[in-house]
Order: sequence, then structure tokens, then C-alpha cells
Amino acid sequence: MTARVTVMGSGSWGTAFALVLSDAGQQVTLWARRPELAAKINSQHCNPDYFPTIDLPDTLRADHDPDRAMADAEYVVLAVPAQSLRATMAGWRIPADAVVISLAKGIELGTGYRMSQVISEVGGIGADRIGVVTGPNLAREIAERQPSASVVASTSPETAIRLQELCHTSRFRAYTNHDVVGCELAGATKNVIALAVGMAAGLGFGANATASVITRGLAETARLGVALGADPYTFSGLAGLGDLVATCSSPLSRNRTFGEELGWGRTVAEISGETRQVAEGVKSCASIQDLARRSGVEMPIVDQVAAVIAGTITAKEMIPALMSRSAKPERY
Amino acid sequence: MTARVTVMGSGSWGTAFALVLSDAGQQVTLWARRPELAAKINSQHCNPDYFPTIDLPDTLRADHDPDRAMADAEYVVLAVPAQSLRATMAGWRIPADAVVISLAKGIELGTGYRMSQVISEVGGIGADRIGVVTGPNLAREIAERQPSASVVASTSPETAIRLQELCHTSRFRAYTNHDVVGCELAGATKNVIALAVGMAAGLGFGANATASVITRGLAETARLGVALGADPYTFSGLAGLGDLVATCSSPLSRNRTFGEELGWGRTVAEISGETRQVAEGVKSCASIQDLARRSGVEMPIVDQVAAVIAGTITAKEMIPALMSRSAKPERY
Repeated sequence: MTARVTVMGSGSWGTAFALVLSDAGQQVTLWARRPELAAKINSQHCNPDYFPTIDLPDTLRADHDPDRAMADAEYVVLAVPAQSLRATMAGWRIPADAVVISLAKGIELGTGYRMSQVISEVGGIGADRIGVVTGPNLAREIAERQPSASVVASTSPETAIRLQELCHTSRFRAYTNHDVVGCELAGATKNVIALAVGMAAGLGFGANATASVITRGLAETARLGVALGADPYTFSGLAGLGDLVATCSSPLSRNRTFGEELGWGRTVAEISGETRQVAEGVKSCASIQDLARRSGVEMPIVDQVAAVIAGTITAKEMIPALMSRSAKPERY
Repeated sequence: MTARVTVMGSGSWGTAFALVLSDAGQQVTLWARRPELAAKINSQHCNPDYFPTIDLPDTLRADHDPDRAMADAEYVVLAVPAQSLRATMAGWRIPADAVVISLAKGIELGTGYRMSQVISEVGGIGADRIGVVTGPNLAREIAERQPSASVVASTSPETAIRLQELCHTSRFRAYTNHDVVGCELAGATKNVIALAVGMAAGLGFGANATASVITRGLAETARLGVALGADPYTFSGLAGLGDLVATCSSPLSRNRTFGEELGWGRTVAEISGETRQVAEGVKSCASIQDLARRSGVEMPIVDQVAAVIAGTITAKEMIPALMSRSAKPERY
């Protein structure tokens, strides 16, 4: 059965997910902030900013007016950057009975909120009407219709199954999950771990070292998650391990690439000045560090990344700091 | 305190680990089957077969006579291929009170034994004198003294700590673990999962798909492990996730490379004919599949790899077979 879905945000992931939803048979509207982009998507079926060579489905419609775009939507997908979600959402009228789906990965600075908490607070939306899509989902590969597996999470099992039906295709396998807290923490923290992995790679370290950072990074993410009520299994699944490995192994990842440039010795200001897209881990590392402190959880890799981002140590000083900790049992 | 250690086998991993032990201050003897190689290691401090450009420590001695090489060893490290360990060991006289350490990753065809079980049976050695070294340990990177983390496992906590002291250096971080079953199953199965990841890459799939195969592959490995008495945590650690990610992300991995060539459409016979080193997953996939069947555990990725190796399906048929399974919750 065809559903009416509006995707709010026509960046790379918003556009790619709109394409998945169209492939799954839904009637999809894509909101683009700039009228010129909305017009181009409607006339040329293409998003030249992100995927100039990919044809978007003819059924996909774009609109630059946010309230008109989602006026009759049964599902509203939020595809805006994590740190601007609150401000952007505040200006919108989301239909009262729509299910709201978050694509953003990050922890809000200041509040320490996960994205679903921001949605709930700003939109007055109950947890059973909120879903999260996450997993190993590099947007370009999904737009190219390469095979991919994903997680659709909601505290409501019915909502999770509805979301699975909404986006499952032969190329995009959606698995349901009930652990929204774990899925969101995993998605946000992987950006920070990807910065550390990128720094190790940029410093010339090989696969043993980067795999160790991935493993220990996921272990500290799981520690934080368990302290905040998440299911530890989530971190071994697609939303945890899967997303982290995809991000850390792809040259398409902004966070990993940003880390690599830090490893080469460049500064945050130098790298930020050159890229249009934000590396979310650069923002979220401070809010995750704050969450960890308040929860009494040790996160040595997040601490080191936050110190590099703050400019108090260099990337070159980070890896020896991690390696020189005392010999330990693996779990302590 | 300096210990006398003999490493039996001068392939890439045996040679690299002998170098680690030497760096850690031990008195190390390396057994090389060919007298010419032993002589060259002694005169030129180099293993030209594997690391022609790396200087081995001057303190490292080589010997081609196995019994003389380990005559007064306190520790004997077994660094021979998994499927020939039984036959090779049968001709040796391991000192009665030496601690025996396995570096081999595989499950014996026919018996379904892990390497420590083969060592125990052939050598009449008690579990408290057997240790396993595993983790994200690409031999070349370790020989280059790049930073690396590793797991030393023994059912005896005292033995695990002795092994940690034996090999811990500023570049090679050794973490103790008590779960020998989990460490050995993870090490053997990762070779099979790496074949699947290699096939996906060889077929042109991207990071989303390979990360999904890694995630689901680790999940089925953990299912087998738990059925055989392993600690599920092991699979999220360095011996599980760490080793798998290092293997799957490095062009230095034999198993991943073998899988990639299968993905290009080449046959097992064609690829095997060209390489000197064995891709252990090609052998172990059948014994792991057998273990899984006897334990009543579903391992869809191992099944598909075994079918490709047996020649009943092609690599091209494997990925769609995995993708077309029905929509599911992530954990079932």
C-alpha cells in the first residue's frame, strides 16, 4: 500500500533515502531549502549538488515550502544536520498524527539530547510515533542502489514494523530494532571513533592499529550505552559495528576523511574552511564526552579526540597516549 | 626476566612473532624447516622469503633441527598451518614442562578440533599449559613494528599473565583473556567471513555491503561460539571484531584477497595454483560448517562460502542469495 512520505532535507542522505522510499513504492515529497534546487529536482529528476550522475525516480516530487511539502504526510523524515535540528524544526508544522523518522546522527550540544529526544521535546511527539533509521548507510552507495542493510528502530514494535514495510526493498534490507537509545548513541559516537581511525590512518598506521581503535572504540561506546539504558547487543549489530565499519573503511566518509587530514597535521580550522559538509563528530565529541562524564563512564578514545578537536593535543600525540596505557585484561 | 622461547615455523606470522618476543627481551630460537633459510637468518638477520627488507634482532637464532631448536625451551610457539599441525607435531619432542602457544587459526578437517585440542591430544599437554595468541595481527605490520593490540588466551589465568609478560612491548599490546574456545573459533571463522567480504568487494560492492557481511558474519560466529560454550563478549573484542576488521580491511590478507579473486570470477583451482601461501578459510569453511550443523546453529554466510569453494554456486550467485532472505528483526 502506497504511503505519503515527506523527506525534510535534500542533502546526500535525505536524497538517497527519498530514492529508497520511492523504490519501495511510496509517494515521496522531498523538501529542499533552495527553490532552485527544488525546481531542478522536479524538472531534471536529479540533485546536482550531491548526485549529479544519478537519475531520481520520476515519482519523486520536490518542494521548497516546508509546510506545504509535509501538509498531508503520513510519515515525515527529518534529514537535517544534528546540531541544527532543534532550530529548523521549531519553524515547521508537522502534521499531528504523522510518524516522524530521524536520519540525523549526533548528540545535541548543551542538552546532551539524542535526536529523538529533541524531536519529542520540540514537536511534542510521543515515543511511539518516533522512529530512527541507522546502520551502514553511506549515502552515495545507496543512491547507486548498491546492496545495503539497515536498522529501523522504535520503542513501539508496531511503528518499527510499519517503517520496515515503508522502506524495505531488494537492495535495502531493513531490520527492526526496539533499542532507540542504543541505536542513536551508536550512530552519534561512531562519528567520533571514525575521526580517531582517520587520524591513525593519516599518521600512517596500518590495519592492525585501525582495527584496534574500532574495537576499543565500540567497547567504550557500549559502556556508555549500557550506562544510559541501551541493550548491549545493539553495539554488535548493524547500528553499532556495521555503521562504524562502513564509515571507517570508506573514503566517502566525511568524519574519517576529516580525521585523516588531522593525522596529516592540519588544524580543525584549516579543514573546516574547505568543506561544505560538516563532519558531525567534530561537534558531537564534546557532547558525548559530557554524557560520559555525567554517567561515570571512561571513554579514553572520545577523550583523546575531543582534546585534538579542542587543540590541546595534536593527532600525533594521541596514538602514543592510547598505546602507553598499562597492560590489562581485555574486559575490566 | 629473560625466558627461553622457541618459535616452530618461520612463515610470516612465526617470524613476526619471534621478532616481538625478541623485542620483549626474550631469548628466542626460530625453527626453519629448510637449512638454507636457518643459515640465512643466522648470518644475515633476515627472512628473505617473507620480509626481505626487515632486519631481525641480532639475538634471534635460527635452527633447522626441530628437537634441537626446542631442547631447553620454556615456551614453545607453534606457527605452522592449521591443517598440518597434527602431522608436524607428531614428529616433535616438546619439552615436558614447556608452555605451548598456538598461533594457528583454523579448525581441523575431519575432527572439527580447535588447534588447542589438537595440541592437547597429540602432545598430551594439559589445558593449563596451553595458550593462544590471536587478534588483529597482520604479520607484515607487526614485523614493521607498527602499533598493534592482541589477545593472549588461556584457561589458566596464571598462564595468560605469563604470556602477556612474555610478549608485551610498547608496540604490541597484549590483553589477557580466559575464553580459549571463543578466541579460537573467532580466529578460524574470520578467515571464512573474510572470503565472503573479499567476494563482495571483488563483485564491485561497496562499504555498506561489506560492513553488513562483517556484521552478520560476526553474529553467526558468535551464535556458533555460544553453542560451543564460548563467552559471547569475546566476539566483540580484539579476537573477534578486531581480527575480522583488520583482515577484511587489508590488502595484505590472504583470505580476503582469495575471496576478491573469486568475486572476479576465477576458480579455486586457478587461484590456488598461483599462491604459495594457503588461504586457511578455504579449508576451514567445511569444518566450521560441519561444527555448525552438529551444534544446530544457522550460519548462512559460512554455508554460502562453502558452496562457492565446493563449486556448487558462483560468487556472483552468493550475494543475491544472502540479500533475498525475508525481512527480519535484527536479532531472532
